[in-house]
Amino acid sequence: MKALIYKGPNIRAVENRPKPELIDPGDAIIKMLKTTICGTDLHILKGDVATCTPGRILGHEGVGVVDSVGPAVTAFHKGDHVLISCVSACGKCEYCRRGMYSHCLTGGWILGNKIDGTQAEYVRTPHADISLYPIPAGADEEALVMLSDILPTGFECGVLNGKVAPGSTVAIVGAGPIGLATLLTAQFYSPAQIIMIDLDANRLVVAKHFGATDIINSASGRAQETVMEMTQGKGVDTAIEAVGIPATFELCQQIVAAGGTIANIGVHGVPVALHLEKLWDRNISITTRLVDTVSMPMLLKSLSAKKIDAKLLITHRFKFDEILEAYDTFAHAADTKSLKVIIEAD
Amino acid sequence: MKALIYKGPNIRAVENRPKPELIDPGDAIIKMLKTTICGTDLHILKGDVATCTPGRILGHEGVGVVDSVGPAVTAFHKGDHVLISCVSACGKCEYCRRGMYSHCLTGGWILGNKIDGTQAEYVRTPHADISLYPIPAGADEEALVMLSDILPTGFECGVLNGKVAPGSTVAIVGAGPIGLATLLTAQFYSPAQIIMIDLDANRLVVAKHFGATDIINSASGRAQETVMEMTQGKGVDTAIEAVGIPATFELCQQIVAAGGTIANIGVHGVPVALHLEKLWDRNISITTRLVDTVSMPMLLKSLSAKKIDAKLLITHRFKFDEILEAYDTFAHAADTKSLKVIIEAD
Amino acid sequence: MKALIYKGPNIRAVENRPKPELIDPGDAIIKMLKTTICGTDLHILKGDVATCTPGRILGHEGVGVVDSVGPAVTAFHKGDHVLISCVSACGKCEYCRRGMYSHCLTGGWILGNKIDGTQAEYVRTPHADISLYPIPAGADEEALVMLSDILPTGFECGVLNGKVAPGSTVAIVGAGPIGLATLLTAQFYSPAQIIMIDLDANRLVVAKHFGATDIINSASGRAQETVMEMTQGKGVDTAIEAVGIPATFELCQQIVAAGGTIANIGVHGVPVALHLEKLWDRNISITTRLVDTVSMPMLLKSLSAKKIDAKLLITHRFKFDEILEAYDTFAHAADTKSLKVIIEAD
Amino acid sequence: MKALIYKGPNIRAVENRPKPELIDPGDAIIKMLKTTICGTDLHILKGDVATCTPGRILGHEGVGVVDSVGPAVTAFHKGDHVLISCVSACGKCEYCRRGMYSHCLTGGWILGNKIDGTQAEYVRTPHADISLYPIPAGADEEALVMLSDILPTGFECGVLNGKVAPGSTVAIVGAGPIGLATLLTAQFYSPAQIIMIDLDANRLVVAKHFGATDIINSASGRAQETVMEMTQGKGVDTAIEAVGIPATFELCQQIVAAGGTIANIGVHGVPVALHLEKLWDRNISITTRLVDTVSMPMLLKSLSAKKIDAKLLITHRFKFDEILEAYDTFAHAADTKSLKVIIEAD
Repeated sequence: MKALIYKGPNIRAVENRPKPELIDPGDAIIKMLKTTICGTDLHILKGDVATCTPGRILGHEGVGVVDSVGPAVTAFHKGDHVLISCVSACGKCEYCRRGMYSHCLTGGWILGNKIDGTQAEYVRTPHADISLYPIPAGADEEALVMLSDILPTGFECGVLNGKVAPGSTVAIVGAGPIGLATLLTAQFYSPAQIIMIDLDANRLVVAKHFGATDIINSASGRAQETVMEMTQGKGVDTAIEAVGIPATFELCQQIVAAGGTIANIGVHGVPVALHLEKLWDRNISITTRLVDTVSMPMLLKSLSAKKIDAKLLITHRFKFDEILEAYDTFAHAADTKSLKVIIEAD
Repeated sequence: MKALIYKGPNIRAVENRPKPELIDPGDAIIKMLKTTICGTDLHILKGDVATCTPGRILGHEGVGVVDSVGPAVTAFHKGDHVLISCVSACGKCEYCRRGMYSHCLTGGWILGNKIDGTQAEYVRTPHADISLYPIPAGADEEALVMLSDILPTGFECGVLNGKVAPGSTVAIVGAGPIGLATLLTAQFYSPAQIIMIDLDANRLVVAKHFGATDIINSASGRAQETVMEMTQGKGVDTAIEAVGIPATFELCQQIVAAGGTIANIGVHGVPVALHLEKLWDRNISITTRLVDTVSMPMLLKSLSAKKIDAKLLITHRFKFDEILEAYDTFAHAADTKSLKVIIEAD
Repeated sequence: MKALIYKGPNIRAVENRPKPELIDPGDAIIKMLKTTICGTDLHILKGDVATCTPGRILGHEGVGVVDSVGPAVTAFHKGDHVLISCVSACGKCEYCRRGMYSHCLTGGWILGNKIDGTQAEYVRTPHADISLYPIPAGADEEALVMLSDILPTGFECGVLNGKVAPGSTVAIVGAGPIGLATLLTAQFYSPAQIIMIDLDANRLVVAKHFGATDIINSASGRAQETVMEMTQGKGVDTAIEAVGIPATFELCQQIVAAGGTIANIGVHGVPVALHLEKLWDRNISITTRLVDTVSMPMLLKSLSAKKIDAKLLITHRFKFDEILEAYDTFAHAADTKSLKVIIEAD
Repeated sequence: MKALIYKGPNIRAVENRPKPELIDPGDAIIKMLKTTICGTDLHILKGDVATCTPGRILGHEGVGVVDSVGPAVTAFHKGDHVLISCVSACGKCEYCRRGMYSHCLTGGWILGNKIDGTQAEYVRTPHADISLYPIPAGADEEALVMLSDILPTGFECGVLNGKVAPGSTVAIVGAGPIGLATLLTAQFYSPAQIIMIDLDANRLVVAKHFGATDIINSASGRAQETVMEMTQGKGVDTAIEAVGIPATFELCQQIVAAGGTIANIGVHGVPVALHLEKLWDRNISITTRLVDTVSMPMLLKSLSAKKIDAKLLITHRFKFDEILEAYDTFAHAADTKSLKVIIEAD
């Protein structure tokens, strides 16, 4: 079968690989229908993710059809249409019992990282009973691809950890796909104000369209002052870091109100300065999280009930044969104005 | 009246001052019976607390007798014995309504900081109805002095923020008075393990006596390794920082388990490095807090019910005339083995 | 001044009364601009509320202008436009400290009940600093009248107590003003399904317009079966009782899912049967609550941010001279299709 | 093998049965070492539990040794010593994902109810990976039998649902084994007062020994008045029903404070009167729960850390050959002063 392979730093290729086979009794083999590319895939390609070694098939998102299941799988059968979670979870280790699927002792984020992923014709998914979700007949499968990773990530790491609440004020630093997914799911809780901050004017226009009440172009160098003006000098109840660099985490510290929360989503490569000399008496919380995807049942219900328009995130569509072009489009978002790209089976 | 005055960096003196008078309708004047010295008082004396200017009467802890009350005070009358909270709270601003008394718009920690404090014969206490607590007849007033600041600080900033829970594992970094107060109140929640970490062998012995299940002398340079061994390589559910320097906050980051919490109590003077490059995917929380003393009613009930032995924290007793000696004893804790010192009215 | 007086069971009259005067230092006198009538006022008129004795001026809702304040009031001044909470709260008793303003030892629901109320030209409001809210210039004061009681009641007793959540299923039994206020505020949390149940076809049409996803006319006698069909046999996560009679509480027990919550809002006059023989192993919660109005700051922010259209609840408007007609219109809601009626100062 | 069989109402017998065999891939066969008898077993014997039909081997508690495991079991191997949870849980259905193991779609309380149980030489345990717990070498296996059902039931249904907290006041109505297990685990949260109420003077003496701060013999007919006196007329923060009859649930309604919680543990056979006419404005919660045993990991840690002395509950010991005598001893608790009886393999 065809698959997108990480060949080492800055090298990717479409190659032929054998179709995957069942290994553990809880495995399923899924014939992929639609997948997408994540910012993390770009990190891997840069060589930044040590757990992912050359030769790996990338991808941890998508929908597909069950091709076969292991003997311990009870919830799925050949022919079922399924949504694939980016996180595999056994459901029985101490972390899974606490809802921390991301730290499952035999799972977590392994797809397209420690084991082969979804950017291929077929994928093997471990712990299938917990890590796949049935797709109801008639559902929009393209929209569902947004549930594999980006929407639960924005919701769990940003919105839930950030304690977004009715009437509250929220700032989201970073209007890339993950920041925008956070913006969409933050509206589940009807905050009074959602301020979107980014350097890219186009993305801020998109953010307004997605429901931001205010936008700030941080190229001005006045993001902190502007947030303070917008919040009567108090700062925001929730500051969500959706970039992953010291400058944006610094901004979050500058704009968080006393009693507020900084929810980190960004993948950081270096330490940041934490200004405890200013924050020690400010009664704040700072949270980090790798998405657990435990909100998936809720998100599926919300999507069915049309409480969220997940397809807003999709800007481009490609056939699997065009996956290298899809990567280029996604990687050059400032030029292509891409958010999420859908890659369909040929 | 006699009072202990901050005269500028490293200068203190007992001087005569006029007896304070009622200013606002919600004020009370309290004749002090017993007070104590806080680590923060030493910070002020070093010149580290910008809000406290020379000429200030220090002290924010103690018990006394109501001497007079303003016309808006309804809960207290002349002659009532009262416990003084270190935090003054109006009860009606947006922060007080949220239980954040520490950020009261007309209160917070002002006693012995922005207004004259309790290390004197009399003190004026603003917002008396909310900031004083009645002392039941027969109560041990010396024990109650420990409730003005140190016990609610350990409990709110360390134990509550740290989400200490039955069966959990806790490390407290710093076995000074505040760390030990945290240790005492952590036991309200029956964690399975409380590991106390300090450089001072004597204080670790005290910690064992106060209920620590394990002690680690960090002079060994092996605190991190030892905690990891004690927790089967997982780290602790709750790491409580009770010192206020980069090294101890660093240790907390090294020993917190996935899904755990770092609760900061220490007063920090400089930024610390936050290792988001390691922690971004560990699902942790970091909290800061200036004590709100909202747990005071609960602590009073627990003290009455003998669920905590607050007097364990008291090592030395002085008359007010000996307050300079009391300061010396408290400031040289390693030599004097002092924890909290009681200063009684002459 | 003119005032609406409860003269004894089923007797009401507009009479002349002296303008109220300040009694306690925390009082304010408010010149009323707009008030309204509550279902509870009708209960009083039937003689069902023992705490309210003949001679009382009714009314516990409204907006007005500050006419004078006592010496302990610091947040308001003559001329300020204010929203009046139906609950008076001292902010310092043990209940107020816990956010249970409804049980304030010197307040609670006393306006138009134990002391004279708002259906008059002037009203005395105790504990003014906490029980009044400033109205920003330019705000729609008519909409704000809905915040005195009905919206916080629906929100606190129904939505918060009922743990309404994104993706969840909610049934509201009773589509009167309070049920509809619950419906409006439930949408702050984006539940997937809100089923409205009532006997009145008109009110169900209104409910659809207000955002109900489904409606059931319980006149059919098939409400339980219909809810079960709509929820795949599971029942609802949240069942909200907004009537106050045994039959509707019974229905809530029949439709609540395992793990769900029954939130009672209705004012009950007789005991109900609780089917513990069926519910003991169903992991449910049942809650009761007299509104605390602690959500007022949040509701004010949500109203300002246009997250809720409170004016939807207002169907009729009267001058104070027409208040008896306003009562008739409100009391015969099935005929007049009234929800809330606004009564303006002449 | 020998097994205790429910033969129909009021008929029980020890009979020979074939050793159970693996059916599902997730099953284990356990050779029993120690089991016990539950109040529910007596209910079954009276014919009160419709789901348990004649011919069933009773028992849902105990420790044993793994004899064999199905191919999907990964956490256990032949020879492992294990604790058996009374609740079987798949870990992957919608209820298990929410921590409601009691409502697992293919599990829940089925052992000794819908499938054969533990009062036998061997038992088949479904969903073994989640429903069994490893016993560390050197642990006291007799104490661990108390963790199969009675301690998690008291803790989850009584203590957690009842929101027992430091400094709070608790009443437990019923000092039988389950009430006493609740008493033991309530102390994890250091409430200021635990009032134990029962008709049996001996059990009240035991309750004092187990840590109750106060006891009330309800034979006096003055339980309500006495609780009110003990709580300065406020009632208790938490009232726990541990009997299962209308009179005791009535008492809980009489003694719960405004803002408090009634946590039901008792198995009820008939409806009770809920006094909403008195409670509608008291801001209380009432909870029901079938134990989920999700607290098992915490309880195991607490037992290891000696935070609870589970063996206090064990009063009698029998060999399996004496199981009929064990039943008689347990059934006549008032005479035999039995709490829990241990039944050891011969």
